[in-house]
Amino acid sequence: MRLGTLRGRDRDGELVVVSADGARYTRAATVAPTLQAALDDWDQTAPRLAALAQALGAGNVAAEALDLARLHSPLPRAYEWVDASSYLNHVILVRKARGAEPPETLRTDPLIYQGGSGILLGPTDAIPLGDPAWGLDFESEVCVILGDTPQGTTAAGAAACCKLVMLANDITLRNLVPAELGKGFGFFASKPATAFSPFAVTPDELGGAWRDGRVHLRVRSTYNGDLVGDVEAGPEMHFSFFDLIAYIARTRSFTAGTILGSGTVSNADRARGVSCLAERRMIETIETGSPKTPFMKAGDTIAIEMLDDKGRSVCGRIAQSVQTLQTKVRA
Amino acid sequence: MRLGTLRGRDRDGELVVVSADGARYTRAATVAPTLQAALDDWDQTAPRLAALAQALGAGNVAAEALDLARLHSPLPRAYEWVDASSYLNHVILVRKARGAEPPETLRTDPLIYQGGSGILLGPTDAIPLGDPAWGLDFESEVCVILGDTPQGTTAAGAAACCKLVMLANDITLRNLVPAELGKGFGFFASKPATAFSPFAVTPDELGGAWRDGRVHLRVRSTYNGDLVGDVEAGPEMHFSFFDLIAYIARTRSFTAGTILGSGTVSNADRARGVSCLAERRMIETIETGSPKTPFMKAGDTIAIEMLDDKGRSVCGRIAQSVQTLQTKVRA
Repeated sequence: MRLGTLRGRDRDGELVVVSADGARYTRAATVAPTLQAALDDWDQTAPRLAALAQALGAGNVAAEALDLARLHSPLPRAYEWVDASSYLNHVILVRKARGAEPPETLRTDPLIYQGGSGILLGPTDAIPLGDPAWGLDFESEVCVILGDTPQGTTAAGAAACCKLVMLANDITLRNLVPAELGKGFGFFASKPATAFSPFAVTPDELGGAWRDGRVHLRVRSTYNGDLVGDVEAGPEMHFSFFDLIAYIARTRSFTAGTILGSGTVSNADRARGVSCLAERRMIETIETGSPKTPFMKAGDTIAIEMLDDKGRSVCGRIAQSVQTLQTKVRA
Repeated sequence: MRLGTLRGRDRDGELVVVSADGARYTRAATVAPTLQAALDDWDQTAPRLAALAQALGAGNVAAEALDLARLHSPLPRAYEWVDASSYLNHVILVRKARGAEPPETLRTDPLIYQGGSGILLGPTDAIPLGDPAWGLDFESEVCVILGDTPQGTTAAGAAACCKLVMLANDITLRNLVPAELGKGFGFFASKPATAFSPFAVTPDELGGAWRDGRVHLRVRSTYNGDLVGDVEAGPEMHFSFFDLIAYIARTRSFTAGTILGSGTVSNADRARGVSCLAERRMIETIETGSPKTPFMKAGDTIAIEMLDDKGRSVCGRIAQSVQTLQTKVRA
């Protein structure tokens, strides 16, 4: 089934079940008011949401036409946003771009950071541009939404924790990264609000493409109308979602609704393109001595989606434009 | 007013207003079901909660005796837990302890990390001990809970964002820190669930002790029955909460209910003692060549509180013991 969140009167919006073709939805208030509430009680709510999805498919329930602009992030705010960097090609290129070495444990010890999750962007929300000198970049990623995940969960037991799959645009302010990481405490100011795809889907929607804790489909990134990346999300995800869950659950538990990201989807084969501008700039530097592609500016657009083998946009399309931030300063 | 959260049937508990002496409470369900709900609509709910507090003080409302063990963290889960390291004495000592240099921008650029916030510990919850080799430590801190804080908020405008004050025990796995920070992405596995004080109080409860974005009171840490720290939280907080808010709001906005921590409260005057074991171990190393104090083990107790000039425990007492974790492995 495919779930979404309608923008509503309050911060958490309203849970809806979306049809297989993404064109219609039905309200799920009889099951749970919000996606977080559904996840809090998933064993009870999931079968009822699945029944609603079936009724929607069969035309046995009231449905409305879906306007994507009315959809918020499936979780408009989340209790945790945990993001890995699981595609080693990305780690190697981006570290090279900022003159840093990949960690020695690159292949044995996942890179993970804790992101801000109190304000998340919907799939068509503008990306606010503060200071253009900050170096705005997109990052196309695959995510899972976890159910309750106890400390000590193993990779072998992690499949049961993966309740939903969606896409993310993990927006990054590249030029703030080196100084921030240099202080030793990780990303903070360099990671503004992240955007998510219209739909969060149960893994069974992916069919055989969901296996070994990886999504074996391509993530397509379209920047200013040009397809800049059509990148395989499966084989080069060095640490699978199952590996990542075992890693993060070593020292603590996670609540239902925690979002876990793959990191920027990246392939060693350059013909596949890129899922962020930083990689392209590094390739340009390697090939020509300096980066040619500027970071994002006001008016730029980025679209991110993932097509299945029938050409269906599994999680719907993230389609954002960059807008200069009109800061409302409290003074 | 003083607010708390009773453990209840669901994850978020039930909002209560607590009497000035901390002995009684009244349920606040007529105003808001949870503290998060109250914060989401603070302009409307705060005056009504204040009226309830006044009625409780005057004996004009149904009250029940308060059993501290029934209190959860004021926010049992939060949308963000943002923790600074604003006492420079702590930064200098702890970095020395792990052979790292303080960052060059120590005095101009706050150290901040994004903590996990999906599962927070109540004030009397056991601290789970996984592997004793991880080096379990407490950290006594002061926190504020923010209201909605827009991007661009200045230090001059930050007072209005500080809705509540409480204490934290920012539990740290010291021996996991060096390798984790060495990877460059900041704390993650080394920061398990944080515990918070029984009460979150409005700044006016602190009277003149709340000024310049700092809490001018002492934080007392009692480890295994010994008062190991009685540390001034005010003058040596190099970056005030107002400074920290301006810093974090430079590149994004924060939702109501975001918790912002001061970092381990620390004074250069060694007679004041310590608010974590890492500092004591570093002082021992400086004085005798090696640390003498081991990290925490099963059965150890830690209590953290803050007394005002009348000797009242402003936020109530964090009182935890360490218990060996019985990992429930999913396999």
